[in-house]
Amino acid sequence: MLFSEKEYKKRVEKTKKRMQEKGIDVMMSSHPANMNYLTGYDGWSFYVHQCVLVSLDQEEPVWIGRNMDANAAKVTTYLKPDNIRNYADDYVHSPIGKHPVDFIADVIEEKGWGNKNIGLEMDQFYFTHKTYQILNKRFPNASFIDADLLVAMVRQIKSDPEIEMMKKAGKIAENVMQTGIDQLEVGKRECDVAAEISKAQISGTDKIGGDYPAIVPLMPAGDGIDAPHLTWSERKYKKNEPVILELSGCYNRYHAPIARTVYLGEPPKRMQEITNFVVEGLEETLDFIKPGVTCEAVEEKWRKSIAKGNLVDASRLGYSFGLNYPPDWGEQTASMRPHDKTVLKKNMTFHLIPIIWQDEIGFEMSSAIRITEDGCEELYNFPHKLFSK
Amino acid sequence: MLFSEKEYKKRVEKTKKRMQEKGIDVMMSSHPANMNYLTGYDGWSFYVHQCVLVSLDQEEPVWIGRNMDANAAKVTTYLKPDNIRNYADDYVHSPIGKHPVDFIADVIEEKGWGNKNIGLEMDQFYFTHKTYQILNKRFPNASFIDADLLVAMVRQIKSDPEIEMMKKAGKIAENVMQTGIDQLEVGKRECDVAAEISKAQISGTDKIGGDYPAIVPLMPAGDGIDAPHLTWSERKYKKNEPVILELSGCYNRYHAPIARTVYLGEPPKRMQEITNFVVEGLEETLDFIKPGVTCEAVEEKWRKSIAKGNLVDASRLGYSFGLNYPPDWGEQTASMRPHDKTVLKKNMTFHLIPIIWQDEIGFEMSSAIRITEDGCEELYNFPHKLFSK
Repeated sequence: MLFSEKEYKKRVEKTKKRMQEKGIDVMMSSHPANMNYLTGYDGWSFYVHQCVLVSLDQEEPVWIGRNMDANAAKVTTYLKPDNIRNYADDYVHSPIGKHPVDFIADVIEEKGWGNKNIGLEMDQFYFTHKTYQILNKRFPNASFIDADLLVAMVRQIKSDPEIEMMKKAGKIAENVMQTGIDQLEVGKRECDVAAEISKAQISGTDKIGGDYPAIVPLMPAGDGIDAPHLTWSERKYKKNEPVILELSGCYNRYHAPIARTVYLGEPPKRMQEITNFVVEGLEETLDFIKPGVTCEAVEEKWRKSIAKGNLVDASRLGYSFGLNYPPDWGEQTASMRPHDKTVLKKNMTFHLIPIIWQDEIGFEMSSAIRITEDGCEELYNFPHKLFSK
Repeated sequence: MLFSEKEYKKRVEKTKKRMQEKGIDVMMSSHPANMNYLTGYDGWSFYVHQCVLVSLDQEEPVWIGRNMDANAAKVTTYLKPDNIRNYADDYVHSPIGKHPVDFIADVIEEKGWGNKNIGLEMDQFYFTHKTYQILNKRFPNASFIDADLLVAMVRQIKSDPEIEMMKKAGKIAENVMQTGIDQLEVGKRECDVAAEISKAQISGTDKIGGDYPAIVPLMPAGDGIDAPHLTWSERKYKKNEPVILELSGCYNRYHAPIARTVYLGEPPKRMQEITNFVVEGLEETLDFIKPGVTCEAVEEKWRKSIAKGNLVDASRLGYSFGLNYPPDWGEQTASMRPHDKTVLKKNMTFHLIPIIWQDEIGFEMSSAIRITEDGCEELYNFPHKLFSK
């Protein structure tokens, strides 16, 4: 177990408080980050249906998953054996119409929760429409309430032990980005650079073993610089092309994302100019951030700063992140952009990722931060600049 | 583009044929593997809502995604510019109630598809209940039909060019498994071995650049040998412990999964005995496999063979696999197990993965195969044995 039992219990208490506020008696969470957050469960088993049930009338959550994954639940969670329930292998992609959610429904029924107000994560991947259909049919007397992002909102403010995890991820991130920059070379295949980056992510440092980030290395380059989610290919890097590295360190599922831009040659003058405005804008914005400020105010600060250089950032400036699994390290809660009125609080964590595509130039440079008592701090120490080689 | 336009068009035709059989006029697919299969689209953008729409009354599918991903769609798909549609960034995790599926619904309406029979992938991750709610509210005159696994069933039989991709993935897999075995060492951290494996996966070979497999290296060891989906940690390998390596080669999203067991020391006698029965059982089963045989018959052959050694395999023997994205390289269609009456056909591909946990011993050894004209062939060449060092 990575955290104390007390820490997990606090998380469950906070979740129950939010459930009460929303009139939810029992909630089902299939989001792997929520399952981990509430119980400690960790395993690459989220390609089958599984969940955690949290009920106001029971202290501990109940973990439900495939039989072969119950062993991992025993190892990684603090739950009593009674609260680890598993379905037989013939429920998995069954040819005879068995469905894992039937088993989950059996547990709900057995616990007497079938006529309660049941919270469901209506817009989470890993919670399918079929899951809803099965529960809806099985429990005609239940009320189903949208509990989307309910646990994510609890996750948004990290505990001090979680911040420690993220700072370790930050140490890995420094090493990962340096590896990426060192490895980039004209004539080398993209896949060979991605391979070295992945090795650095997973190996970590001598003292801090790495974990797999929730997103693979993203490294748009050359003509594809404006396609930020393309992954690598066998293509070889060419002279005089820009490469964006959007990477992360990860430690025990906690992230520290980092992006930098590298130019393979002498960077065009306009690119250096853009960089200077972005660095200035980012640093002014970091100085501005502190508890009590809203996300939309942070974005406004940034927007006005880069306007000095006639730059426009077409996407959100940043987003809340932390503990997560593929496909995303973001938490899908607060974003730094217009209309987001989230008030910053101590121990929230954001990835600020300026992205500029302008005058045929693509540039990214990011900062993963924690909100402190009176400002913010970066989770890693890595120069704010355009790299060239 | 990885395949010819003709190849993509054939896939769309086959999909439309299945749609007609099910009375579906238009179908929406958000499964990243289906999106790739039908259009070529490739990118790590599946953490936001996106889809492909296939309609009987339009030749090409329509790709719909986030604005910053439309550039990747232009690069990776064969679609005409009109058929690449994108929503603005403020639809992503919106604080003002905008939802990407509203935009998808706009396209459906514009095309005149809102009162048709619309196929939806009801039990696919990446298709949420909320998506259903929005479409259902918006189109009261539509009929929604479950199209779960419809495209996956088309994907199940590979074309010859797809088999070529998988054989290249098989070449990478040989290298990946050899790297894993070479790297395992008493006293080394699990994360350092995982890092070298990942590097081998992504780098590939000199001639074949690697891609990220849909599942990270799974390598249960020692006391955790019975928790197959636990990932690595900072723990160091100890003398006299077994390690299972469940890995894959991946080439352009096509997989070749491979599992082997390694013993760090002199293997216990019972472990070698179990291995011998598993090798014999697997090889008898491979000899038995050919077009016309059913999945359940294959499993029965396997079950009866290992019964000679009093062994029981509690989970399904194998499953269909191929092109895929996280969280799974499996296709969720056919499995080799009781009651699965799928008839094997040429160019189906299966991962046979015997898993034995018995007498306190955990053992896995797998084979990724293609069904040929009159039998089957492995996608790689790697010894069927227990490794020790």
